[in-house]
Amino acid sequence: MSTPEYLTGKKDAIRQFIDKYDVFLVDCDGVLWSGDYLFPGSVPTLEMLRKKNKQLVFVTNNSTKSRQDYCKKLENMGISAGVEEVFGSSYSASIYISRILPQSHPELKKRNKVFVVGEAGIETELDSEGIPHLGGTDPAYRRDVTLDDYKLLAAGDPSVLDPDVGVVLIGLDFHINYLKICYAYHYIQRGALFLVTNMDSTLPSAGALFPGAGSISAPLIKMLGGREPIAFGKPNQAMMDAIEGKFQFDRSKACMVGDRVNTDIKFGLEGKLGGTLGVLTGVATEEEFLRGDTRPAYYVKELGDLLEGA
Amino acid sequence: MSTPEYLTGKKDAIRQFIDKYDVFLVDCDGVLWSGDYLFPGSVPTLEMLRKKNKQLVFVTNNSTKSRQDYCKKLENMGISAGVEEVFGSSYSASIYISRILPQSHPELKKRNKVFVVGEAGIETELDSEGIPHLGGTDPAYRRDVTLDDYKLLAAGDPSVLDPDVGVVLIGLDFHINYLKICYAYHYIQRGALFLVTNMDSTLPSAGALFPGAGSISAPLIKMLGGREPIAFGKPNQAMMDAIEGKFQFDRSKACMVGDRVNTDIKFGLEGKLGGTLGVLTGVATEEEFLRGDTRPAYYVKELGDLLEGA
Repeated sequence: MSTPEYLTGKKDAIRQFIDKYDVFLVDCDGVLWSGDYLFPGSVPTLEMLRKKNKQLVFVTNNSTKSRQDYCKKLENMGISAGVEEVFGSSYSASIYISRILPQSHPELKKRNKVFVVGEAGIETELDSEGIPHLGGTDPAYRRDVTLDDYKLLAAGDPSVLDPDVGVVLIGLDFHINYLKICYAYHYIQRGALFLVTNMDSTLPSAGALFPGAGSISAPLIKMLGGREPIAFGKPNQAMMDAIEGKFQFDRSKACMVGDRVNTDIKFGLEGKLGGTLGVLTGVATEEEFLRGDTRPAYYVKELGDLLEGA
Repeated sequence: MSTPEYLTGKKDAIRQFIDKYDVFLVDCDGVLWSGDYLFPGSVPTLEMLRKKNKQLVFVTNNSTKSRQDYCKKLENMGISAGVEEVFGSSYSASIYISRILPQSHPELKKRNKVFVVGEAGIETELDSEGIPHLGGTDPAYRRDVTLDDYKLLAAGDPSVLDPDVGVVLIGLDFHINYLKICYAYHYIQRGALFLVTNMDSTLPSAGALFPGAGSISAPLIKMLGGREPIAFGKPNQAMMDAIEGKFQFDRSKACMVGDRVNTDIKFGLEGKLGGTLGVLTGVATEEEFLRGDTRPAYYVKELGDLLEGA
């Protein structure tokens, strides 16, 4: 395995790097910002790349926001982007449920409802694909479990378990509770498919780590004896195929930029993109980039370091 | 591996089985009752065993109840038992923290507080050992996460993260939420030991399964990259040693009765008890008893089947 090239401070190498690619797929959390803190070099770097006529695609595993929410967040940060330039794990999951599942699992055509554990972003993306759903942000599920819940769930009572639910979709849920895990488990035990927007164990915020969608789904995986769900988002190549379908780009002229080896860098490598660029403003350490099993082709301290090649 | 002997309906075999043992260690959930449903044969069977001068010990992994709570639950079910006859995972964990940790981890003598994720039973047992604790049932932790939480936790601010916390103890928590997982994670990242009352993935209730303490701790294990906590309760032999310390019994004349192979039966086998009896009123199936990797010496359909040998 080759050693990644460190670009920070090397003007000519940066210029050559930028010239190599037409398309930059950019992860957001940990690359452009951490939680609500925008890294100072992010906006000028993206503007520089746009000025050089590079196509930017914002690729995020964050399931709590819809593509529209993401555009708003980008705009608030001073970054202009169209909805079609944003790809998120909730969108990717919704596309799978509406377009792939009816072919691969025809028996689910009748049980077409989705039980959601997650935030509004998932609901918006399911709505945009016309998929009926329950759970999610419904306040009815934000309460303590009762003795009646145990009895009704155990009995599979249709007054609590909707017989039309054929899919359970888990994403990052800031309102996760015991009751929602019970519902998700009992739907899956009654035959619903087990899907997860993404398997990121953590979410970077304020320079530290907090629980991610992968951790929110961990209780269910444990209860199901280790059974792994179908996961979307990076490094799942369903998202890459969707991006290629939209932009029809030459993969050899595209570069994935990210802070995580097991999602971002793996996504670029498995997608056979021309390049991968790691940044040190998120989850991965320099040690991981240099000596890990999954290594980017290039890395910089922070995205803004690319400005030297402007 | 030998095939377990099925006792149900075999009067002589049951009589011989009962005569073999002086002590019966009895699991509760899934053996005597499921949730709030008491199996009809439980009370007369225990009375029969008492009449035959058998020592009964109630051994439960349920961390939500203290030993006192358990006595009350047993009494409400019509089963009389003294506190000294009850061993629970919260008690076992508290003993470990108060008596073993100061020897094995002398650096924790100064950081002697426990951050609890769990219900009142854990708090009662910690109190009975004089261990200071926070978290647990404190309503201050039963709320949504805020932007301030991210910032203060990320900064390790002592106004939110008590510097005297040296242990995080997770048990079954019906009020699990995102905030508590964040606190537990950040305490562990700052050097606190990671303990779990028990690793049962599920809790049987109303004849079905619900999340257990092992599932409540799963998000943390995932966030910590798969790092396993120190777990108490069955099959951990610390509990067996404590029971032996109290009753000074001959292990070859003791039998463990339970519904789970990976906790109850394993507990008896690893403790080198004279016998193990599986029941089919809880988690394990007959298939598991007959063909699994961990098999009881005997099994019955339900505990009440032993009455035939009265």
